[in-house]
Amino acid sequence: MSKKRYLALTGGVGGAKLALGLSQLLTAEQLSFAVNTGDDFEHLGLHISPDIDTLVYTLSGQSNPDTGWGRRDESWQFMQSLEQLGGETWFRLGDRDLAMHIQRTRQLAAGKSLTEITNRLAKALGIEHQILPMSDDPVRTRVQTQSGWMDFQEYFVKQQCRPAVTGFEYSGSEMAAINPQLVELLHSDNLAGILICPSNPFVSIDPILALPGMRQALIDSKAPVIAISPVVGGTAIKGPTVKMMQELSIPNTASWVAGHYADVLDGFVLDQQDAGLKAGVESLGLSVNCTQTVMNTLEDRVALAQDCLDFLHQLN
Amino acid sequence: MSKKRYLALTGGVGGAKLALGLSQLLTAEQLSFAVNTGDDFEHLGLHISPDIDTLVYTLSGQSNPDTGWGRRDESWQFMQSLEQLGGETWFRLGDRDLAMHIQRTRQLAAGKSLTEITNRLAKALGIEHQILPMSDDPVRTRVQTQSGWMDFQEYFVKQQCRPAVTGFEYSGSEMAAINPQLVELLHSDNLAGILICPSNPFVSIDPILALPGMRQALIDSKAPVIAISPVVGGTAIKGPTVKMMQELSIPNTASWVAGHYADVLDGFVLDQQDAGLKAGVESLGLSVNCTQTVMNTLEDRVALAQDCLDFLHQLN
Repeated sequence: MSKKRYLALTGGVGGAKLALGLSQLLTAEQLSFAVNTGDDFEHLGLHISPDIDTLVYTLSGQSNPDTGWGRRDESWQFMQSLEQLGGETWFRLGDRDLAMHIQRTRQLAAGKSLTEITNRLAKALGIEHQILPMSDDPVRTRVQTQSGWMDFQEYFVKQQCRPAVTGFEYSGSEMAAINPQLVELLHSDNLAGILICPSNPFVSIDPILALPGMRQALIDSKAPVIAISPVVGGTAIKGPTVKMMQELSIPNTASWVAGHYADVLDGFVLDQQDAGLKAGVESLGLSVNCTQTVMNTLEDRVALAQDCLDFLHQLN
Repeated sequence: MSKKRYLALTGGVGGAKLALGLSQLLTAEQLSFAVNTGDDFEHLGLHISPDIDTLVYTLSGQSNPDTGWGRRDESWQFMQSLEQLGGETWFRLGDRDLAMHIQRTRQLAAGKSLTEITNRLAKALGIEHQILPMSDDPVRTRVQTQSGWMDFQEYFVKQQCRPAVTGFEYSGSEMAAINPQLVELLHSDNLAGILICPSNPFVSIDPILALPGMRQALIDSKAPVIAISPVVGGTAIKGPTVKMMQELSIPNTASWVAGHYADVLDGFVLDQQDAGLKAGVESLGLSVNCTQTVMNTLEDRVALAQDCLDFLHQLN
């Protein structure tokens, strides 16, 4: 019997695009997701899990194509009323989106784990694939900037990534346990491959890799591990990845990303635009697959997913 | 200098109608409200204060004329999404209304008192009059029925008042302190009159009167105290008052209401339809004013308010 299961590590919008492609090719029995929770935060008394919600909304066809975040067919009556009452409005919560945060917060208060809650909410929206928060323990990404340390959402949403970053920390990480179901999956003999989706290395993937034992588990896994570059031709498709690289005086290349993950990787997926970087990445000891990684359409997402699965098959 | 301040005790929709009338005649310096919090409850992790909200929405012109509860121009996207996620939907929370509960809950969690929070929310909606929750301590009305004890909102909303009531309790009441600002007002030499609005005796007014020291403070007050009958011609304008009276084997008359409050009252306002009850109510030792108490229009509300103020003036 050939190995059957795949695991994708993912963060925000870029990762969710490939996740959607994978979900079209692999059944719930064949594919699980591990999601960054480092950008979770408490706001208005609610527990908000932006990356989980991005994945859940994307996989369920509920994502908002106009904003790139939140739910489609959204309305903003709550927000308008909150503003009238003098409430905080810098983090926009749509009327429909709010139901997710209220349910999650309520169930957390009732003692349920984020994993159990996520599973239940995803199922309610028709998602069959397993979505595993990276940990049930709190990890909070904090951003060091020239204006001082700030919580991730303060940096990302309130300050709109304007402050120049000088570092990151994943607060609580050292005490957080990897999601037990994720540990089990990582050790499974049935695992055919692990994908690190094209998400921001600093604020989407590194919080996952920072969990004690996570890098070693990826290194020890018998399944091949690949990453798909979030940097294409020196720019990022979405989000502040390249801005951060520049502020950190890091070369804004896919090669740097490959090197950053090299210890846990067997292969790396470069965009065809970056074919010139292939030899350099191979010199890190990695197999390289050059393909179209820019995903504009659903077909692009499925095609890249298929490419990645083929690449993992070669590495098995 | 003549006495200048009035205090109105109020509960739900009926009380809020007269409150609105009074607010048209008296300035913020002249009029304060004390509001029942016995029907407050925790739902979806939010602190909901239905009677405070009814008063706030009524005074600010935000009340929903179609439903009789909640905010006008309301939408229900949150509720629809919550239903999709498998959440509890028996208590309807509109998108706009939700902002009130989120703000209140958040500020309570931050250690602010319900009084301070109510004051702030009311001001944000343009209300100048002082709205005092009867207590900052939790009091919860519970309803004894032929199906057992139930929390008030379970009886009132979930069961739609169907179970026959056999009694009430105001849980926490014995430990609750009257709102300190209300105590001060009750003892003020400047108080010209106290009005018990035409609210349900059992679930709107009795929870206020059940606070330790409250009845005595009304008895001791130098200001005259009047009540306006919520029962007119043997029926209640709104809500389950008469149904409750029947189930409790209490005569469904205004006279019974007058007798129920008689120890704290100086005067009682009967509807003109109930003029035949005047002598009976007077025999309780109360002055009686017969007038139109049914309030269909804003003019009705203002006219009844003026009648009540004139009546209090006579009793001074």
